[in-house]
Amino acid sequence: MRATLIYGASDVRVENVPDPKIQAPTNAVVRVVRSCICGSDLWPYGSRPASEHGDRIGHEFLGVVEETGSDVSGLKAGDLVVAPFAYADNTCEFCREGLQTSCLHGGYWGTGDVDGGQGEAVRVPQAQGTLVKLPAEEDSALLPSLLSLSDVFCTGHHAAVKAQVSPHTTVTVIGDGAVGLCAVLAAKRLGAERVILMGRHEARTDLGRDFGATDVVAERGEEGIARVRELTGGHGTHTVLECVGARPALETAFGVVRAGGVVSRVGAPQYAEGPIGFGMFGRHVTLTGGVAPARAYIEELLPDVLEGKVQPGRVFDRTVSMEEVPDGYRAMADREALKVMIQP
Amino acid sequence: MRATLIYGASDVRVENVPDPKIQAPTNAVVRVVRSCICGSDLWPYGSRPASEHGDRIGHEFLGVVEETGSDVSGLKAGDLVVAPFAYADNTCEFCREGLQTSCLHGGYWGTGDVDGGQGEAVRVPQAQGTLVKLPAEEDSALLPSLLSLSDVFCTGHHAAVKAQVSPHTTVTVIGDGAVGLCAVLAAKRLGAERVILMGRHEARTDLGRDFGATDVVAERGEEGIARVRELTGGHGTHTVLECVGARPALETAFGVVRAGGVVSRVGAPQYAEGPIGFGMFGRHVTLTGGVAPARAYIEELLPDVLEGKVQPGRVFDRTVSMEEVPDGYRAMADREALKVMIQP
Repeated sequence: MRATLIYGASDVRVENVPDPKIQAPTNAVVRVVRSCICGSDLWPYGSRPASEHGDRIGHEFLGVVEETGSDVSGLKAGDLVVAPFAYADNTCEFCREGLQTSCLHGGYWGTGDVDGGQGEAVRVPQAQGTLVKLPAEEDSALLPSLLSLSDVFCTGHHAAVKAQVSPHTTVTVIGDGAVGLCAVLAAKRLGAERVILMGRHEARTDLGRDFGATDVVAERGEEGIARVRELTGGHGTHTVLECVGARPALETAFGVVRAGGVVSRVGAPQYAEGPIGFGMFGRHVTLTGGVAPARAYIEELLPDVLEGKVQPGRVFDRTVSMEEVPDGYRAMADREALKVMIQP
Repeated sequence: MRATLIYGASDVRVENVPDPKIQAPTNAVVRVVRSCICGSDLWPYGSRPASEHGDRIGHEFLGVVEETGSDVSGLKAGDLVVAPFAYADNTCEFCREGLQTSCLHGGYWGTGDVDGGQGEAVRVPQAQGTLVKLPAEEDSALLPSLLSLSDVFCTGHHAAVKAQVSPHTTVTVIGDGAVGLCAVLAAKRLGAERVILMGRHEARTDLGRDFGATDVVAERGEEGIARVRELTGGHGTHTVLECVGARPALETAFGVVRAGGVVSRVGAPQYAEGPIGFGMFGRHVTLTGGVAPARAYIEELLPDVLEGKVQPGRVFDRTVSMEEVPDGYRAMADREALKVMIQP
């Protein structure tokens, strides 16, 4: 089959790889119907050292079950399923607490001998715990929004949940990428009445307004902080959803959060150290978030997606074929495309 | 009157200062019955640059109201009261949320023209919001525990509250100082069944066991982390109460916290940057805590103190007179004394 591999910065290739096969009774094989490129894929795309050996890549997909191992129940060939961006048994002590990203028997796509999601098919470890059956056909118009349950919508939702967004909290979302826009949508869905979106790409912030942003702040750094404070009586917002992962975004988050508030981050940190000294302590700011356990949220978010109450799939503004994946990466890196869907 | 001033590292003096007087209708004057020295006073005692001008110091006291301004109701001359370590109007939007340390009209003792607590009397700004009347006499045997409501017990309690300690959470407390021991007591009071105390001073950790610690880990650094993990099936504890404020203590906290857990810090950070990169993010650790809003907790904790259910005052192991305050600092800095009470 064909699958995507990354060899180095700006070097993504689509190549022939072995067809996936059941290797353990807990496995399933899924033919990928839709996959996509994540903002976090752009970190290695921007900086991975070149090597002769490529790594499989991609961690978001939905598809049709082709085969299941003997220990997998509740799933059968022909089912349309979505996979969260980490596989998990969904039964261990961490999974039971809703932290499937720390599953004792789980892991990430594209690591070790585990397939990446940007290919024609995937061997799914811990299939029963990982895959969620979708009550939809494989030609459904809802596929983009259903695919967003694999990562981007669940990640935005996670940022909002960890920040305890409610009708009583004001919210700043930092970042107008697909996760940031989904965080806006999630905050609105959880009842937030005031959602300030910090972003400077107008087409994206316009979608952010559609998703529920009440204010858009295009300024960055100190100027951006001053603007958010001006909009909030000088205090900042109760919650800040940091959806970028770069250090300046974190600094902005600490600058716009209200005393006693929460910075919830879901952008993978591109820094090792951060400013958590007396300033943060004295203002009593909580830092939370992390790699979103998408699996914990899929069932909860699915009905709203199926009913069309939320349309997170609107973050996909380009679709490419398998062979066009390298150009999809280029388009996202160049900010030509917000988020690229792959139709193998 | 006599009061304590700090002039530099290891240079604390007791001097004559003007008697406090009502300066605004919201003020009260309190004659101090008991004050004490805080672990956080040892930071300037260890490092304050020498100067010709001394600063008033001390932020924990209980005493008898001598006079109240015309806007102060609910308090009268003769009342025994305790002051939290920050004054606050207790009515502003932050106070109403229980964050009196961010009061819009509040501040800290010993700053600007505000008296320090280590003196014979104190002018109290925002007296009505700040002071809490104590149903006790000024010769009560409960004075040490009542005084602990000014800071140390409330601070330990705050660490536990922000960490969401409950019967379902395991707890590590880092630091066997007075705050750490009070954090043990608070965690136990909130129902924690497993409380691991990290500390190496046996007299202190013995008191920690009395307060509810189920395990004591004397090792530090990587060894200490390994020991706590060994005690917890390899995973660490759900919550970590960081009661020191030094960077190695924070690093230990991140090392012993379970994935998905909370590090709650109440030791004033002696670092500007901390290790909050991908390690913390990937394990989904929350960092919370801050300057404890003691005022928010006094009424809640007072009944247990009055009934003797908890005895946080046991952290005081030495009492000095006003003139002996400099030696009290020395004794605490030399770790001869755990926490020193002042009887002016």
